[in-house]
Amino acid sequence: MSNPTAAMLVIGDEILSGRTRDANMHFLAGKLTEAGIDLREMRVVGDVPDAIQSAVRALSEAYTYVFTSGGIGPTHDDITADNIAAAFGVAIDVREDARAILQAHYDRSGLEMNAARLRMARIPEGAALIENPISAAPGFILHNVYVMAGVPSIFEAMVASVLPTLTGGTPLTSRSLTIHRGEGDVAAPLTELAARYPALSFGSYPFQRDGAYGTNIVIRGQDAAMVEAALADLAALAE
Amino acid sequence: MSNPTAAMLVIGDEILSGRTRDANMHFLAGKLTEAGIDLREMRVVGDVPDAIQSAVRALSEAYTYVFTSGGIGPTHDDITADNIAAAFGVAIDVREDARAILQAHYDRSGLEMNAARLRMARIPEGAALIENPISAAPGFILHNVYVMAGVPSIFEAMVASVLPTLTGGTPLTSRSLTIHRGEGDVAAPLTELAARYPALSFGSYPFQRDGAYGTNIVIRGQDAAMVEAALADLAALAE
Repeated sequence: MSNPTAAMLVIGDEILSGRTRDANMHFLAGKLTEAGIDLREMRVVGDVPDAIQSAVRALSEAYTYVFTSGGIGPTHDDITADNIAAAFGVAIDVREDARAILQAHYDRSGLEMNAARLRMARIPEGAALIENPISAAPGFILHNVYVMAGVPSIFEAMVASVLPTLTGGTPLTSRSLTIHRGEGDVAAPLTELAARYPALSFGSYPFQRDGAYGTNIVIRGQDAAMVEAALADLAALAE
Repeated sequence: MSNPTAAMLVIGDEILSGRTRDANMHFLAGKLTEAGIDLREMRVVGDVPDAIQSAVRALSEAYTYVFTSGGIGPTHDDITADNIAAAFGVAIDVREDARAILQAHYDRSGLEMNAARLRMARIPEGAALIENPISAAPGFILHNVYVMAGVPSIFEAMVASVLPTLTGGTPLTSRSLTIHRGEGDVAAPLTELAARYPALSFGSYPFQRDGAYGTNIVIRGQDAAMVEAALADLAALAE
């Protein structure tokens, strides 16, 4: 049984200019791995209509789920919702349920509902809303694309609300071992081990600490017992 | 005059599984912005031949420069060099100059040159080497693709050595202003300002601190005087 696949699309000039360091990719990667959803690709594009539309179309066709972050706020550079709608050829307009959610939030917070804030109630036709427990403005789901906010606290809250609704797979078991030898010394036995366990994935991550070489080996797979067996073999090889 | 464009491709299962948080994208984004090179897109793919080859081909065709990180070490999962060669249909083999660099480094370090380490001297036909002042194993340049290590200290050293060889553009001037109002209140004046200065880019980044709403506005453009003028207008609007 192969697991469902996923891609992430980060939208925002501020990441590409180096002004902001993205935190959402790493967060989502960890959550999807726990859920047994196989994250295959991530992309970052700017606030550029063609770039957003062509990435969304390509990723939506290639993977089970697509998750986006960024570009759903009230300002002129928040163009994600319009371009998701355009990517799928559907209309977009202010939707009453989204407007009501925003209005209730602004009434509670003493903020004024103006034209800019009303833009955040623009939802593509046929989309389902994603709850935003922090600043109310909803995300949405259109086909297999989950459109969420870029602000990390809001992104994380939205991920928490959509994750239980996804069809997950068998979570990967992951075990690691630190070997106090250079990666070049570990490579040959590791290649043999990888050939012996074709269903598992073996990663090798070199480090240098206090002038000494070392390598962290990570073994991953859906069969927990097989991962443990490979880890025992590796430990024996490393002695 | 438009600036040269660039894309980055991060290669590695460990980023997609959430085990490792990538640091190279943020580093490169800042360096390219300083150099006046317009970073348009970033992608992360796994250690998967088809994924690497199709991403490299797509990005190499679309942008002036492509920078990759990851997958050029000695182990079985380091498949970047072979797949860059395959993406361009050229041969790859151990190259004498690369082998000599590695041999000299291992002689100095008391490490053994074995088959695994020799893999790091495999260089696609027609490529130029990128110096690695830390662990010797070179990166390389094939066509417009700059292939570099994933370990951040080595990646950063390689970027430092290639940056002066690139044709840069006019560096962007960037100025920012913090406005102690919600993004929804700032949006309308900001839209007007963006329309008044079409050559500049205006970003708006909301935050919430001690229960109060605020927005950071970032103005960017190649014409420093115009950026200053827009900043003064913005400051007047924000009073």
